Amino acid sequence: MNATDFHGVFPYLVSPVGEDGRIKDAVLAALVEHLIAAGVHGLTPLGSTGEFAYLDRAQKRRVVEVTLEAAAGRVPVVAGVAATTTAEAVRQAAEFERLGCAGILAILEAYFPVPENGVVAYFAAIANAVACPLVLYTNPQFQRSDLSLGAIERLAQTKNIRYLKDASTDTGRLLSIINLVGDRLGIFSASAHIPACVMLLAGKGWMAGPACLIPHQSVRLYELCRAGRWDEAMALQRELWRLNQLFAKYALAACIKGGLELQGFPVGDPLPPQPALDAAGRAEVRRALAAQGVLPRSG
Amino acid sequence: MNATDFHGVFPYLVSPVGEDGRIKDAVLAALVEHLIAAGVHGLTPLGSTGEFAYLDRAQKRRVVEVTLEAAAGRVPVVAGVAATTTAEAVRQAAEFERLGCAGILAILEAYFPVPENGVVAYFAAIANAVACPLVLYTNPQFQRSDLSLGAIERLAQTKNIRYLKDASTDTGRLLSIINLVGDRLGIFSASAHIPACVMLLAGKGWMAGPACLIPHQSVRLYELCRAGRWDEAMALQRELWRLNQLFAKYALAACIKGGLELQGFPVGDPLPPQPALDAAGRAEVRRALAAQGVLPRSG
Amino acid sequence: MNATDFHGVFPYLVSPVGEDGRIKDAVLAALVEHLIAAGVHGLTPLGSTGEFAYLDRAQKRRVVEVTLEAAAGRVPVVAGVAATTTAEAVRQAAEFERLGCAGILAILEAYFPVPENGVVAYFAAIANAVACPLVLYTNPQFQRSDLSLGAIERLAQTKNIRYLKDASTDTGRLLSIINLVGDRLGIFSASAHIPACVMLLAGKGWMAGPACLIPHQSVRLYELCRAGRWDEAMALQRELWRLNQLFAKYALAACIKGGLELQGFPVGDPLPPQPALDAAGRAEVRRALAAQGVLPRSG
Amino acid sequence: MNATDFHGVFPYLVSPVGEDGRIKDAVLAALVEHLIAAGVHGLTPLGSTGEFAYLDRAQKRRVVEVTLEAAAGRVPVVAGVAATTTAEAVRQAAEFERLGCAGILAILEAYFPVPENGVVAYFAAIANAVACPLVLYTNPQFQRSDLSLGAIERLAQTKNIRYLKDASTDTGRLLSIINLVGDRLGIFSASAHIPACVMLLAGKGWMAGPACLIPHQSVRLYELCRAGRWDEAMALQRELWRLNQLFAKYALAACIKGGLELQGFPVGDPLPPQPALDAAGRAEVRRALAAQGVLPRSG
Repeated sequence: MNATDFHGVFPYLVSPVGEDGRIKDAVLAALVEHLIAAGVHGLTPLGSTGEFAYLDRAQKRRVVEVTLEAAAGRVPVVAGVAATTTAEAVRQAAEFERLGCAGILAILEAYFPVPENGVVAYFAAIANAVACPLVLYTNPQFQRSDLSLGAIERLAQTKNIRYLKDASTDTGRLLSIINLVGDRLGIFSASAHIPACVMLLAGKGWMAGPACLIPHQSVRLYELCRAGRWDEAMALQRELWRLNQLFAKYALAACIKGGLELQGFPVGDPLPPQPALDAAGRAEVRRALAAQGVLPRSG
Repeated sequence: MNATDFHGVFPYLVSPVGEDGRIKDAVLAALVEHLIAAGVHGLTPLGSTGEFAYLDRAQKRRVVEVTLEAAAGRVPVVAGVAATTTAEAVRQAAEFERLGCAGILAILEAYFPVPENGVVAYFAAIANAVACPLVLYTNPQFQRSDLSLGAIERLAQTKNIRYLKDASTDTGRLLSIINLVGDRLGIFSASAHIPACVMLLAGKGWMAGPACLIPHQSVRLYELCRAGRWDEAMALQRELWRLNQLFAKYALAACIKGGLELQGFPVGDPLPPQPALDAAGRAEVRRALAAQGVLPRSG
Repeated sequence: MNATDFHGVFPYLVSPVGEDGRIKDAVLAALVEHLIAAGVHGLTPLGSTGEFAYLDRAQKRRVVEVTLEAAAGRVPVVAGVAATTTAEAVRQAAEFERLGCAGILAILEAYFPVPENGVVAYFAAIANAVACPLVLYTNPQFQRSDLSLGAIERLAQTKNIRYLKDASTDTGRLLSIINLVGDRLGIFSASAHIPACVMLLAGKGWMAGPACLIPHQSVRLYELCRAGRWDEAMALQRELWRLNQLFAKYALAACIKGGLELQGFPVGDPLPPQPALDAAGRAEVRRALAAQGVLPRSG
Repeated sequence: MNATDFHGVFPYLVSPVGEDGRIKDAVLAALVEHLIAAGVHGLTPLGSTGEFAYLDRAQKRRVVEVTLEAAAGRVPVVAGVAATTTAEAVRQAAEFERLGCAGILAILEAYFPVPENGVVAYFAAIANAVACPLVLYTNPQFQRSDLSLGAIERLAQTKNIRYLKDASTDTGRLLSIINLVGDRLGIFSASAHIPACVMLLAGKGWMAGPACLIPHQSVRLYELCRAGRWDEAMALQRELWRLNQLFAKYALAACIKGGLELQGFPVGDPLPPQPALDAAGRAEVRRALAAQGVLPRSG
C-alpha cells in the first residue's frame, strides 16, 4: 500500500533482538499481525521505542523487511531513519523506501550540537533522497539539536516533508506549529503529549510506543476524537494516560518490551547496558495492563 | 464577596509603580474596573506578571489594598504570596487575608534548592496560617524547587489547599495531577498551557497575564469550553494563542505592561534592571492587539 | 581600616538569627573575633553562606553593623549587596558604605532572566553609588543571569570595579577572565574552585564559607601559595578539599552553621524552609573537623 | 611498543575523511609523523575531536590501523572505543587491541539515560574484554550518563582500569577523584581543564585536540610542570589557553581540522551536517596559530 494520507494510530514497534544479535523475525511478525488485527492505521519501526540508537545497519534493515512483509500492504509502514551524518541518513532513507516503506520518520542524532542551517540541510537532504512523504521528528529531550519554529517553517517548503511528530511535552508548541504551518504539515503526537488534546488541536493522530500494548483502546480513542465525542474521549483518555505515565517513569523501550512479554510476545529485553524492566516496574505494568483487560488469561 | 469556588478567567494583574517607587493607585484601580466590566471571574495581584519578586513589603501590600478596594467584592481577589522563608510567607498570607483576599496563590522563592519535605512544610505552613483557600503555584522554569506529584498528593490532604496552578508547559503533567488528586484540587492553567486543552481536561479556568489585555475574548473562550462547543472554542483559541506566543517570546511583565500602555493604561515599565518592551516587541504586540480589536481608536 | 588592596582569605560569615528573628549579636561578634585572631585577611558578611536571600532589610543591616563593630578596623569588611531591582541594590550599597564597609560584593538576584545590558547596568549603578571598591560576584548555578566575558570586560572599565569572585566550578573560565582583564580585576575564588589552583593562576585569594571553620589552615594555605611552596601547598590543599566536598554535598549554609555549632558557636540553623544539617551530615562534618583538629576538646 | 605507563601529551587525532567516505591514509600518517617528531608522548585516535560519533565501523578501524602503522611503536596508541551497546563496545575494544593499541579510551554513548549499574557494567565489560589498560572517559556535556564518584570508585577496583580522562570543566571534581582513587587511577586532563592546574594536582598529562596544533608547546608545558617550574609553566599556559578558548567557542572538530588545514595538513572538514569552520573562525584560529609561530611561512 502506498497511500500517503497518514492519520490515526501508528504504534512504535519494538525491535526484538535475540542473544545472537539477530532479529527475531517470527516474534516481530506476530506483533505486526496482532496490531493490524486490532485496527491500527499504520506502523512505525525504528522509532525511539524501537531502539534505533542501539541497532546496527543489518539489524535495522531486517526490522524494516520483516515489518513490511508482515504488514503486506494492509497499512502504511513509516520507518525511522536516524544518523549523525547526512550521508548515512540518506543511505538509510533510500534503502527503506526501496524496500517498500510508505514514508520515512526522519530523526537527527548528534554528538556535537549542530547549528540550525545544518539541521535544516540534514532533513532536506533526506527528503530529496526519496519520493515518499517525510515525517519530521522533534525531541528536545533526547536529540541535542531541536527543530526551532523557524527551521520547521523552512522545511515545510519542501514538497514531500508532510508531517511532524513532536515529543517535547510542550503542547503549546504544537499549536504554535499549527498556527505557523498547519496547512502544510500534519501533526502527530508522541507519548509525551495527551493524544486527545492533540486531536482537539486538529492533529492527525499519534505515533507512540504504548499503542503496542493497547491497540484496540487507542483506535477507540482516535475514533471518539474524530467523531467529536469529547466527553467519552476524555473518560477513556484519563484511563489510558495511566499507561503513558508508566512509560515516562520507566525507560520507554524497557516498559513496552516488558509489557509485550506479559502479553505473550517474547520480544526480550532492551539491548544492554540498557536495563530490563525490574520487578517493581513489571508489577506496575502488569497492573496497568490488567486494568485495561489486555493481559492473556494466564498472564 | 467571599465565594470560594474559584473558576474561570483570573487575569494576573500588573503592578504599576511610579518613578518614586509608589504604586500608581488610580491606574491599577482603572485596570481592575475595566477587567471586571469585561466579565472576568476573579483577579490575581502579585503573580509573576505582577513582578512579586521585585516589590518590597509596602509595595506588595498597597497593590493588594488597591485591588481589593477597586474590586469591591464583585469578584474574588486571590493574591500571590511569595518568599524565601516560611516566616515571611506566613506573614504575607495572614496580612492579605486580613485585608480581604478571598484566597491565596502560594509561591515558593528559593536561592538554595529546598528538599521536598521543606517544600511541603512551607506550603502547609501558609495554609495553616489562613482560613481561606490556597492555590498552589508550580513553575519549574522560575522556581528552583518544583512540586513533585508526591508533594502535591501530600499537600492535597490539607483542608484549605484547594487549587493548583501549573506553569510547566507540560500539559500531560496536568492530567497526571488530575488522575492523582483531581477530586481534591481544582486545576488552573497558566499562560504556558493552552487554556482550551486544560478545560478539556476538566480544568477550572486559567490565571494568566494575557487576560489583562483580552478579557472579553478570554471570557468568551471560557464560556465556549464550558458549553462543550469545542469547534468554536478551538477556532477562537487558535487566534488567541498568537498572543500567548508573544508573551513567551518577550518577557512576561514587559509584554503585558507594554500592551496595557498601548491600550491607554499608563502602567509604566517593569522595574529595572528588567528591560522595557523594545520597539520591535511593541510593534508586534500592537499588531496582535489590533488583530483582536482591543486597541483604542487612536492606538 | 580602609585599605582597598583586598587579598588573602575572606571567610563568608554566617548570619546567626534567633527564634525571634533578631540577629544574635554576641555570637556573630565572637565569631568575628575568632577569625581575626586566626589571621584572616578580611570578612564578607551577606554572601551565599550568609543567607542574604533569606534576610530582610533590618536583619541585613544588623549583620553588617555587628561585623564592623567587632572587626573594629583590623581587617576590611566587604559586605554582600543583593537585590532583584537596581534601586534596592543601590540603597543597600550606599547604606553599607556609610556604615563603614571597605568594599561591596555585588550580587544580582533575578526571577526573570535579565539581558546582558540590564546586567551591566545593574552592576554599574551599584559601582556609581559608592566610592569603595566593588567585587563582582558571578554564580551561574544560583543566579539566573550570569556575567559573560563580554559583560565583565565592559564592567572592568568602571573605576571602582576592582575584583571578581567566581563560583562557577569552571576553573578555565577564571584563566579566560584573567587573560581578558587580569590587569584591571583581581580574581577571588569561591568554594567551588580549588584555592591553590586559583592562586597558581595569580588569584588574589578566596572568599568562601569553609574558611569560617578552618581559618588557620586557610591562612597557612594562602601563605604557602604566596611563597611558591607548591608541594607543601598541595599536600595541605588535598586535605582541606575534603571539607569543600562536604559543603558541596550538603547545603552550604547548613554545613557551615552546623560545623560552627560543633565548634561551640551557637549560630543556629538556616532559616526555614531550608533544612538544618541532618544527623548523617553532622557526623560527617564532625569527622572532617576532627581530622583538621578544629573541634574543641569536648566537641 | 607496549609500555603501559601513560603520561604526558596525547593529542586527540582528527579523522581525515575524503569525499568518497574513505580515510585519507597519507594525510593521517603525515600528521602522526609530525606529532611524534614534536615529542608527544602518545596518540589518541577516535576521541571527540576524532569524530567517533560520525564514523562507521570500517572508517574507525582504518583510522586505528593507519595511526598504528605510522606510529610504528614509537609512542603508545590509545584508541577511543564508543558505542551505545555493550556488545559493540566489546567488539571494538577487542579489535583495536588485536590491531596493536597499547590502551583503550572507553566512552559510553547513550540515547536513553542509563542507570549507574548499567554504566558500571558497560565499562567493566570493556575492561574484561582486553588485557591492555583502560582510560575511563567522562564528559557530562556530551554523554547523557556521567560517571559519579561512586561509579568511579567501583570501576577502579578492576585491574586494568588504570586511568581517567575528565572533560567536565570542573577542576575540583578532579581533586575529589584524586582524593578518592588517586592511588589507583592516573588522571588525564581534557581541553576543558587548564593542563597546568591538572599537573599541579599530580595529573598524568592531557589528552586533547589542541595538542594537534601546538605539539611542541604542549610538550614544553608538560616538562615545565614536571620540573616544578611553575612560574614559567604558567607564563606559557596563559598564552596557550587562548587556543583552548577558541576550541570551546567554535566546534572542536571544526577548529582542529580548520587549524590543521592552515598548517598544511589537508584533513578536510568535519562530516556534514557538522559545520566547517567559517571565515570568522578561520581568521581567529589563524591569528592564534600565528601568535604561537605554528603556521608555515606561506600560511
